[in-house]
Amino acid sequence: MTTSPQTTEPWYIGVDVGGTNINTLLVDKDFNEHTQLTVATDLTNPDYTLTAIIAAVEKTLARAGLPRTEIAALGMGVPGQVDPKEGVVNLAANLNWYDFPAGELLSGALGMPCFLENDVRAAAWGAYRLGSHPGIEHLAYVNIGTGVATGLILGGQLYRGAHGMAGEIGHIVVEPAGTACKCGAQGCLETIVAGPAIARAGREAAQQQPNSLLAGCTPLTTQHVYDAAQAGDAVAVALTNRVGQYLGRALQAVVMSYDIERIVLGGGVTRSGQAFLQPILAAWQQLRQSSPLAEAMLNPDMLILADPNRNMGAWGAAALAENKFSRM
Amino acid sequence: MTTSPQTTEPWYIGVDVGGTNINTLLVDKDFNEHTQLTVATDLTNPDYTLTAIIAAVEKTLARAGLPRTEIAALGMGVPGQVDPKEGVVNLAANLNWYDFPAGELLSGALGMPCFLENDVRAAAWGAYRLGSHPGIEHLAYVNIGTGVATGLILGGQLYRGAHGMAGEIGHIVVEPAGTACKCGAQGCLETIVAGPAIARAGREAAQQQPNSLLAGCTPLTTQHVYDAAQAGDAVAVALTNRVGQYLGRALQAVVMSYDIERIVLGGGVTRSGQAFLQPILAAWQQLRQSSPLAEAMLNPDMLILADPNRNMGAWGAAALAENKFSRM
Repeated sequence: MTTSPQTTEPWYIGVDVGGTNINTLLVDKDFNEHTQLTVATDLTNPDYTLTAIIAAVEKTLARAGLPRTEIAALGMGVPGQVDPKEGVVNLAANLNWYDFPAGELLSGALGMPCFLENDVRAAAWGAYRLGSHPGIEHLAYVNIGTGVATGLILGGQLYRGAHGMAGEIGHIVVEPAGTACKCGAQGCLETIVAGPAIARAGREAAQQQPNSLLAGCTPLTTQHVYDAAQAGDAVAVALTNRVGQYLGRALQAVVMSYDIERIVLGGGVTRSGQAFLQPILAAWQQLRQSSPLAEAMLNPDMLILADPNRNMGAWGAAALAENKFSRM
Repeated sequence: MTTSPQTTEPWYIGVDVGGTNINTLLVDKDFNEHTQLTVATDLTNPDYTLTAIIAAVEKTLARAGLPRTEIAALGMGVPGQVDPKEGVVNLAANLNWYDFPAGELLSGALGMPCFLENDVRAAAWGAYRLGSHPGIEHLAYVNIGTGVATGLILGGQLYRGAHGMAGEIGHIVVEPAGTACKCGAQGCLETIVAGPAIARAGREAAQQQPNSLLAGCTPLTTQHVYDAAQAGDAVAVALTNRVGQYLGRALQAVVMSYDIERIVLGGGVTRSGQAFLQPILAAWQQLRQSSPLAEAMLNPDMLILADPNRNMGAWGAAALAENKFSRM
């Protein structure tokens, strides 16, 4: 990965910045991966976080043996509310960025056009642009990790909503008397299907059911729950079925709300693969068997898992950079 | 309303065809109402239904004293799945229209361009185009009548989805072990908040609570339930609060899914006015008090009731005719 690339074509950089890591990706105009890098996010203060991003990009270029001037544009996905036009991060709690002009600061420091987008929305663009979806123009990328959110492609365009909040389905109340959510409300979708919720449910079940496979897992993770379910552990199966029922209904709502043709499931929880997907498909099958409308709308082939080996946020950010650059 | 209008400007006709009535509306280019007409829908067979629509349009023109040649275009809202490009009604169960080329047949018979749209989507366009929504480009029109569906304006454009099914929120499952829906599934939103569901709940409550005001209402309607709630009847208040809770959460989901700025509530159930609206606002207030995110996203001013004296479907169909004509 350290051979010096051709320099006659535009190159693009995608950056995915999270509360833990900064991931960079350098691709050529045909979206061949050339160099990628993962470094820890510096959360000392907002400026240090930005400095760490700039350093990561410079290190990526150094590894690739490319001067800055060869980069057509950079895209960056940020976990929060972003104003892509102004290049301002309105609110990214995990980065402690509030009304932070990251786009302008990045462009100034790196000497290249830098574009911002919400991270899930960037990943949605990546899933759409780089996946195989012939003829499809309506796609949802549903991220199920620490939180739950949807990025939307409607009519072939990234859809943001009036305030860049479209697809914030994690805080839709699905269990009115349910668990308290960190947002303050009770029974948000996130309190049942997000990673921390599944792990918490696993820990609680393990305490009450010492014979469950889950009882031996410390610290218990979401992956443990899905592994135990795969191994036939009844306690874990009940937990993953519950998640599948709630996610099945949430994804039904996604389909009926937007009338989309494809749902790409990404984020940490989806790394459990088929063990994660099968309970959702079972919930859909129940709905399909009862209702001709559900049968027509909820095609199991609509649901696909994102490639766990790709950082879809960084890929999508690179694809957005290409998209924005080509319209400059 | 029978004076002969000026004939130097384009005129538009909007038609709203339902399972009971056909409503027509003649407007000038500035959307001043000139003539309207309501006739019964002839459901003898699909062709008779179309013939009745043609006759209603001709009668409207005769009343207005306008020749067909003065009409720039006609728009028609149809209760079902419509292909506006082809002018075909794919499926309108209440009219017994299946793959019915109503657009071409209407244009041929009336000698003017005729455009079709789903009725709720047409009403959404009417609510957007003719309402007072300064600066707003993201609006949902939620119809709560015999069924429940949403018409969407996203970024100033009518949003249809991949198959013209966007906004079919009435069949999202909100109570998994709930009442059987006519679609076959259990606990769809319609089984709780649509007109027939509210009336049925009222009848059941009246049987069990003979002291309730509802016990004296035969046949009991949705309006009776809201009237009794307004009069302080505890049984009716419990029913309307339940509807308010479910609709409050459904509208929260609408806001979070699309990030819209305004919701116009229309359809038969909304004619109960403030008695209908207040329980929804109470549900939102609960959410707002618990969660800063809900407080930021669920502004009570977003919710407005459609004008009960306007057939929004016919108005929207006329506005769509103008929109399509101006792009021909």
